[in-house]
Amino acid sequence: MNLKKRIKRLGNLDAKLHGKDFLLTWEKSESDLMAILEVADILKTFRSMNISPRVFDSGLGVSIFRDNSTRTRFSFASACNLLGLAVQDMDEEKSQIAHGETVRETAQMISFLSDFIGIRDDIFLGEGNRYMREVAASLDEGYANGVLPHRPGIVNLQCDMDHPTQSMSDLLHLRNHYGSLEALKGKKIVMSWAYSPSYGKPLSVPQGIIALMTRFGMNVELAYPEGYELIPEIVDIAGKNAKKSGGSFKVSNSMSEAMRNADIVYPKSWAPYKVMEQRTELLKKGDKQGLVELEKTCLNHNAKHKDWEYNKEMMKLTRKKDALYMHCLPADISGVSCKNGEVAADVFDKYRLMTYREAGYKPYIIAAMMLTYRYDNPAKVLKAMLKEPYPRVAFE
Amino acid sequence: MNLKKRIKRLGNLDAKLHGKDFLLTWEKSESDLMAILEVADILKTFRSMNISPRVFDSGLGVSIFRDNSTRTRFSFASACNLLGLAVQDMDEEKSQIAHGETVRETAQMISFLSDFIGIRDDIFLGEGNRYMREVAASLDEGYANGVLPHRPGIVNLQCDMDHPTQSMSDLLHLRNHYGSLEALKGKKIVMSWAYSPSYGKPLSVPQGIIALMTRFGMNVELAYPEGYELIPEIVDIAGKNAKKSGGSFKVSNSMSEAMRNADIVYPKSWAPYKVMEQRTELLKKGDKQGLVELEKTCLNHNAKHKDWEYNKEMMKLTRKKDALYMHCLPADISGVSCKNGEVAADVFDKYRLMTYREAGYKPYIIAAMMLTYRYDNPAKVLKAMLKEPYPRVAFE
Amino acid sequence: MNLKKRIKRLGNLDAKLHGKDFLLTWEKSESDLMAILEVADILKTFRSMNISPRVFDSGLGVSIFRDNSTRTRFSFASACNLLGLAVQDMDEEKSQIAHGETVRETAQMISFLSDFIGIRDDIFLGEGNRYMREVAASLDEGYANGVLPHRPGIVNLQCDMDHPTQSMSDLLHLRNHYGSLEALKGKKIVMSWAYSPSYGKPLSVPQGIIALMTRFGMNVELAYPEGYELIPEIVDIAGKNAKKSGGSFKVSNSMSEAMRNADIVYPKSWAPYKVMEQRTELLKKGDKQGLVELEKTCLNHNAKHKDWEYNKEMMKLTRKKDALYMHCLPADISGVSCKNGEVAADVFDKYRLMTYREAGYKPYIIAAMMLTYRYDNPAKVLKAMLKEPYPRVAFE
Repeated sequence: MNLKKRIKRLGNLDAKLHGKDFLLTWEKSESDLMAILEVADILKTFRSMNISPRVFDSGLGVSIFRDNSTRTRFSFASACNLLGLAVQDMDEEKSQIAHGETVRETAQMISFLSDFIGIRDDIFLGEGNRYMREVAASLDEGYANGVLPHRPGIVNLQCDMDHPTQSMSDLLHLRNHYGSLEALKGKKIVMSWAYSPSYGKPLSVPQGIIALMTRFGMNVELAYPEGYELIPEIVDIAGKNAKKSGGSFKVSNSMSEAMRNADIVYPKSWAPYKVMEQRTELLKKGDKQGLVELEKTCLNHNAKHKDWEYNKEMMKLTRKKDALYMHCLPADISGVSCKNGEVAADVFDKYRLMTYREAGYKPYIIAAMMLTYRYDNPAKVLKAMLKEPYPRVAFE
Repeated sequence: MNLKKRIKRLGNLDAKLHGKDFLLTWEKSESDLMAILEVADILKTFRSMNISPRVFDSGLGVSIFRDNSTRTRFSFASACNLLGLAVQDMDEEKSQIAHGETVRETAQMISFLSDFIGIRDDIFLGEGNRYMREVAASLDEGYANGVLPHRPGIVNLQCDMDHPTQSMSDLLHLRNHYGSLEALKGKKIVMSWAYSPSYGKPLSVPQGIIALMTRFGMNVELAYPEGYELIPEIVDIAGKNAKKSGGSFKVSNSMSEAMRNADIVYPKSWAPYKVMEQRTELLKKGDKQGLVELEKTCLNHNAKHKDWEYNKEMMKLTRKKDALYMHCLPADISGVSCKNGEVAADVFDKYRLMTYREAGYKPYIIAAMMLTYRYDNPAKVLKAMLKEPYPRVAFE
Repeated sequence: MNLKKRIKRLGNLDAKLHGKDFLLTWEKSESDLMAILEVADILKTFRSMNISPRVFDSGLGVSIFRDNSTRTRFSFASACNLLGLAVQDMDEEKSQIAHGETVRETAQMISFLSDFIGIRDDIFLGEGNRYMREVAASLDEGYANGVLPHRPGIVNLQCDMDHPTQSMSDLLHLRNHYGSLEALKGKKIVMSWAYSPSYGKPLSVPQGIIALMTRFGMNVELAYPEGYELIPEIVDIAGKNAKKSGGSFKVSNSMSEAMRNADIVYPKSWAPYKVMEQRTELLKKGDKQGLVELEKTCLNHNAKHKDWEYNKEMMKLTRKKDALYMHCLPADISGVSCKNGEVAADVFDKYRLMTYREAGYKPYIIAAMMLTYRYDNPAKVLKAMLKEPYPRVAFE
């Protein structure tokens, strides 16, 4: 479909993203989500046409990361830069959970001339998303009382509940791979736990995937060894989504059974949410000994499930023995990044470039979240850009 | 007053800021200070009108921080960004005081394509401001000898003597709160020491406040428990300023007496300058044991003055029981950030949003210092911006 | 020569830099090198004319530094900023050497919206340049397979073999000092080892200097105490270059003999390549005890050559007792930065401002490497900039 038509289609969506933070996909309507996918994809096309979508002459995009990250950090920086914002990192005491006056005050101090705040806070179960809402409430208060000239938007760059910039990138990848969102209906996608020799991997990716992919009529199967449950409330949301969208949602405890006839597979390790809860408690108490023991116990549990590796045998069970493999990266690759891991080296290598492409959508998804927050009518903005294109690189 | 008139008024001031670093407010004339307040306020209005004051197509703003800082760091970054400069942090060995060839050389190496250098160096008494002047002399030499294509300006982001971006923000806050600088004449402002369970807080804020607020006909009272003296030379300057401006300056040793009929109060902890001198000596010698003992002694002294808390009782003594409360933030709030602190929680809460607004002027003050350094006739520049406004955010 | 003529001269060069990384000067033709010198010098002139050469409306310049650096970091940041790119630092585990999948993947993740990657990796002999080529191959693969919208260029900001942004800055300094590249023919330049109380200084500067300066008909002499050899392959390259260019190349083991009739001297410390090889092995093994012993041995060896100081006595031996002194900075100055060092304080002071000027070319050299990578016909681009100049600073 040509660009003009795509922009027109965007304009017809009943999206209500203007002035609303992006914190959880399940707080957004299907139209909202479709609008973001469309804007992201148009921005990506603009890039290939050397059209600059810069709308800010100045302004800051603030990044708050409580966890190290190369991928998401670069994606956020790229998105800010694409729209004309400079990135300023906010380094907090990483080990502390700030509350109350500290959060309220800091939120203002970093926002006087800022347009967006990207937050990654995925370490403490029950805290990350709550913290984002505390920042949001502070910004609301500051704007309402004339402290801030406008209300900066917040983008969830990963929390304890959801990882919306990841899951939306994944969905755009699927949409483009299969040609349309329509084409995803009836496709079977398996979000499966996989073995990893590390511990404490966040739940936000599997939770984000099951909550989002059930929105568009897919048959979603969540598989994990007993004991590796996700947050129950989010699993419930996935079930309800599936019913509403005409898809299905199923939980099972066998990787090989789950893989049968899968169109798409997403094998990835995570820690059980109960472990994450205990971990949060121990971290809050500063119980170092307890943390060491919890890690040991968990790694022992993990070690019982080394057979949860996505390999050639598993692949053979999938549709046409060639399900689309997905991963948020970096994957734990057996024999490459560790002895035994989430995926066999030969299987990963087959889909390696695919996973890079999957990751490549993230900067545009973040930029789309920003653009739809800032403008009531993003289609109009994009149309204007297309009509009088300004080159990203001059003299081309 | 409308913008055009304000710009005209600015043009009529006899300010001589062009090409001069901003290191200490007492080196500047009243016209200089008024020009910076006016430019800052116009830039703030521009923001609300979506007018971009970007004047640099490229260029670096270098930040040198010897002390951690969220507030000032973001203010400097915002100011640079607003005018079109990218921020580049210069990380020095924080614990060392560089001199001589190292300073001379480094000053050039970071300045080849830089337009401003913002320096925060408030840890060592007798060193911070001196260091800025050493950098300034190096830049002069480099420019004079063709090493640098132009002379980057230096902005003092806090030193051992003054904190001009803070005090000027505070003054602009007062000017706008009371309507004009004229309206400040005869107002009583109390810069009072207050209890804090921490030690080694810099002197630059109280020194900056008494030296600046005495310039505009206010009645300034400095209050502290015996032994908590500021640098005598700066206290002398405050006294002379008051005489010249038709205001008054008084030092007292009782918080409650000082608060009587105060229009404005600024209760804030600091360490005695003699302690800061000792501390500098011990730091230079690397005498860790000495430092531990000094800290202990000081905290014990502090603890004798827990009654120096600004609370409801104190507030009742002020004009209409409602003096304007000011603070450079973060405040030590009793029962919130510490058990006993500088200010009672209920009092702070009443003026909380006010303190945020106070802080919100700082990015514009810094930008105004830069603009008046760069342009001989800033009024002309602002007039041109207003005449043909370029939007900060496109498609609005 | 006026700007138009210089741009025309640039257009006549048969440079083939478009789309090619800048990794080693000896992989480039004389025309390539001359084109970069010319572009850099034109950009520097543009700066003095307030012409902005910004060609990117957005885009990232990624910096990967495995070694601390103020000079090169600021030069890279300045070059990126000058052309319109925002700098994003990539912080890797500094002590690890990444290979294979990690490098391939990371190279994509940081490149989705990036235009250039600047890499400094000079710690491990045999690794730095190899790592750059691994990144380059990954970018090639990503671009070929549609992962990346364009192929970001790589600039070698110092590796184990060469330091091309340094040596090219040095060459431009010489070209401008003597008036032309032609004027360098027959000039004697001495790259001499000099004493330093530190150990493990990289080889890239002396190697870069002998390999580059032999390209343009100079008489290059490399002097060092026995045992302080450079990588033999690169010494061979220098010899071959000299033959081809009509200059000469000689190795000697006496500083004073080398200095006789020198036009230009470059006294600088380095560690023998065999020591660097051993060091790499020990670092790879994590043999801390071995490293301590190696350092001790080396410092003892160094100490035998304290007479390799460039001082007044040495200076007297040079042409007109006034050879042009060069250094990449910071120099180890006797009695200033250390007791005994590479250069006597009085001699250094005489040429101090010269060394600053020498350093000032680096940002422009880097920008020139970027511009010639990006555009097939940089002369055309510069001509267009000159014809319709856009001011770097508005309202001048």
